[in-house]
Amino acid sequence: MNAYEYALSNRERHLDELKDLLRLKSISALSIHNEEMVRTASWLAEHLRHVGMTRAEVIPTAGHPIVYSEWMGAERAPTVLVYGHYDVQPVDDDGAPEKWRTPPFEPTLQDGNLYARGSSDDKGQLFAHIKMVESYLRTAESLPVNLKILLEGEEEISSVNLHGFIENHQDLLRPDVVVISDGQILATDRPAISYGLRGLLYTEIEVKGPRTDLHSGSYGGVVHNPAQALCEIIAGLHFKDGRVDVPGFYDSVRALDAKERNALASVPWTTEEFVHETGVPVPWGEEGYTLRERVGARPTLEVNGLVSGFTGEGPKTVLPSAALAKVSCRLVADQDPLVIYELLKARVSALTPNTVRSEVRILSHGFPSIIDLDSPMVDAAARAYQRGFGASPVFMRDGGSIPVVATFQRMFRVPVLMVGFGLPDDHLHAPNEKLKLDHFYRGINTAIALMEEIAAVGRRE
Amino acid sequence: MNAYEYALSNRERHLDELKDLLRLKSISALSIHNEEMVRTASWLAEHLRHVGMTRAEVIPTAGHPIVYSEWMGAERAPTVLVYGHYDVQPVDDDGAPEKWRTPPFEPTLQDGNLYARGSSDDKGQLFAHIKMVESYLRTAESLPVNLKILLEGEEEISSVNLHGFIENHQDLLRPDVVVISDGQILATDRPAISYGLRGLLYTEIEVKGPRTDLHSGSYGGVVHNPAQALCEIIAGLHFKDGRVDVPGFYDSVRALDAKERNALASVPWTTEEFVHETGVPVPWGEEGYTLRERVGARPTLEVNGLVSGFTGEGPKTVLPSAALAKVSCRLVADQDPLVIYELLKARVSALTPNTVRSEVRILSHGFPSIIDLDSPMVDAAARAYQRGFGASPVFMRDGGSIPVVATFQRMFRVPVLMVGFGLPDDHLHAPNEKLKLDHFYRGINTAIALMEEIAAVGRRE
Repeated sequence: MNAYEYALSNRERHLDELKDLLRLKSISALSIHNEEMVRTASWLAEHLRHVGMTRAEVIPTAGHPIVYSEWMGAERAPTVLVYGHYDVQPVDDDGAPEKWRTPPFEPTLQDGNLYARGSSDDKGQLFAHIKMVESYLRTAESLPVNLKILLEGEEEISSVNLHGFIENHQDLLRPDVVVISDGQILATDRPAISYGLRGLLYTEIEVKGPRTDLHSGSYGGVVHNPAQALCEIIAGLHFKDGRVDVPGFYDSVRALDAKERNALASVPWTTEEFVHETGVPVPWGEEGYTLRERVGARPTLEVNGLVSGFTGEGPKTVLPSAALAKVSCRLVADQDPLVIYELLKARVSALTPNTVRSEVRILSHGFPSIIDLDSPMVDAAARAYQRGFGASPVFMRDGGSIPVVATFQRMFRVPVLMVGFGLPDDHLHAPNEKLKLDHFYRGINTAIALMEEIAAVGRRE
Repeated sequence: MNAYEYALSNRERHLDELKDLLRLKSISALSIHNEEMVRTASWLAEHLRHVGMTRAEVIPTAGHPIVYSEWMGAERAPTVLVYGHYDVQPVDDDGAPEKWRTPPFEPTLQDGNLYARGSSDDKGQLFAHIKMVESYLRTAESLPVNLKILLEGEEEISSVNLHGFIENHQDLLRPDVVVISDGQILATDRPAISYGLRGLLYTEIEVKGPRTDLHSGSYGGVVHNPAQALCEIIAGLHFKDGRVDVPGFYDSVRALDAKERNALASVPWTTEEFVHETGVPVPWGEEGYTLRERVGARPTLEVNGLVSGFTGEGPKTVLPSAALAKVSCRLVADQDPLVIYELLKARVSALTPNTVRSEVRILSHGFPSIIDLDSPMVDAAARAYQRGFGASPVFMRDGGSIPVVATFQRMFRVPVLMVGFGLPDDHLHAPNEKLKLDHFYRGINTAIALMEEIAAVGRRE
């Protein structure tokens, strides 16, 4: 029995184990779940030892722990570092858990999809790599490569401690190639390799007015309402044509050349597809760029949350004392998130009238990155997709942010392969997140093939 | 012992009873408190019977019950209808009950102030009238007037069932004069009679975008963010100079004439006082009007609440599917709230781009009113204040809304007297609501005097 046959004959148990992992409420953003984060890390370390990794440890950080594991028994073979994250997004967005059709932490199989928070982002994907390990070690008793696995618990809160951890453990982690098991392809018959990732700047903009909430009858008309003032500031952060109205915002953006625009155009995203996926009436955004270019190659400024005053049932005539917006920027090469933070602060300050006070606080940041497409390791990943999904991948720019990619690139100067198995409609960060079950199984096969292909490249090099 | 002496010698017990009333969590806006609303109404009816009213009933409505009580033993004397409300505002504004320095439903006496939700608005004020009744009936065994007391439980949710109740019980309620025990004066040595009240239109503006929340990495830049779009719409509802930018909004506003402006100017409200009271850097609002005119005689549009997307701890890169604002207008004579609603809907519709959908829902409305200052009953109220507070009242326009005043005026065509005992810094609708204890006692005395003065007018007429 080879690794593929083993994976095929153990599908049911592998699914049950994934469900166990998905039941763990590893929400990194909410401190109430801190203990569950530790439980999840321990569960993974134990499972990694169970499938045959020779080392698997839970390593504390200043925040949530890191899981590190290795199997180093393949002499003269390349060393692969697989990265994933076991933390998940919160589920109680705007107090509406009822938006979930099934309980977010009770994995439910419906119509071939596994619904659960973290199913696609990222537990289902990282678990495919662990099941790859099991499939090798229970059949061949060895892997074709040396394998290091690094699982963090802070990806959804911008990997606050990961950069320092990697810097302090360079010898432990040093690989010949990095595999990022957190991403998506276009369709089952259209795999994709992302070679560009956006960076992130996450801030809170707070507007403060009166000392306390006031009665809108007694003070309405003489106090600049902080909720109104916040709206006026937010409205000032975009031009009518969709561009971000923050002076200097676009100064460091690497322009798309004709070759790259042609390549991106080969993977069309039509307005019809967009409307069908999202349910919005028409697309929006920066003029002069296609939808795919806007998401992958252009920076944005988004309002992720708003809160002020009374938001409960019924009417309450309060004049709120403050208003808060969560505002984040997706950044592209070669924007520097800390420079953008300074530009945003200056713009908000300029937009704030003397009738209120405002403050912009940085919550997290990550650098954008672009991956070198000329590496033979990229070809290895393409062949692995061909074997796992039966089609050659297209090369894309991803709109999401995985800042660790930039860290790996700068620290180790090795190829970083984005090997994702998710789909665009997996509802990441939203209610009803799901993973297509078939992709979990194809993901295991792709991971098995990827190790063989990387080993083959290693031997050629 | 006369009524005043009785009130003086029973102060401690009266305060204890008021505390009992303030402990009842009669929050009308939140349905979880429905049973407590009934308990509060029953408590009041029982207490009214206890102090000697010959009739006191809890009358169900489609919403929260009404308490009706009467004492009709004063032959040939005028009939006074006292109105108050036993419901209170919510206390959990923007999830921050910690803003209360003392528990909102555990009345606490500090520095001569009684801190509790409802202490000033309106339980403390209505209770002064009940203690007036007790002071008469335990000494003279009669009142100088016939008295009807109407206490509703829906004032803070715009008296949704009160108008219909009054219409259906005109014979029961018919008075010679109405006394509204819900309002404020300027200072202990500066009582005030409000002769103008603002009306109210309370709405929710909702902007909807994608079908579900989306990942801001995957869709940021091509979907018009509903939170951003809501901010852009809200920002479009005011001109830079503070005027409301809703075409037709000011068309029916009764202009202030020179005489009224002079009268209002006799009660100055300086920028220094304003800044001290509110803590805001500088006043805001419609140019060409004084602070007092803006609040009392000019209409406004306020954002009472905002909510969208992720508002919890930490960063969450969601692109929200919807955003909601609670928006209300304070209206002045002769604006019609239902006409203003249509104008607001049209304006929001015009401000909504085709990239999102918007909706304006009406939650409640009430008409503005102006009270005739020429009635001898107004003089009676002025004399009662002179006796209770030791100073002649000034005449003012109040920025708040008590829509039932307009209803009483239209239904019975009798004088409506605003007899309030609160202070501008009582923190109505906000954390740390309080009533100056001295005003509770002066309020009882003023209410005692008011019945005598009304009886005297009645005998003269």
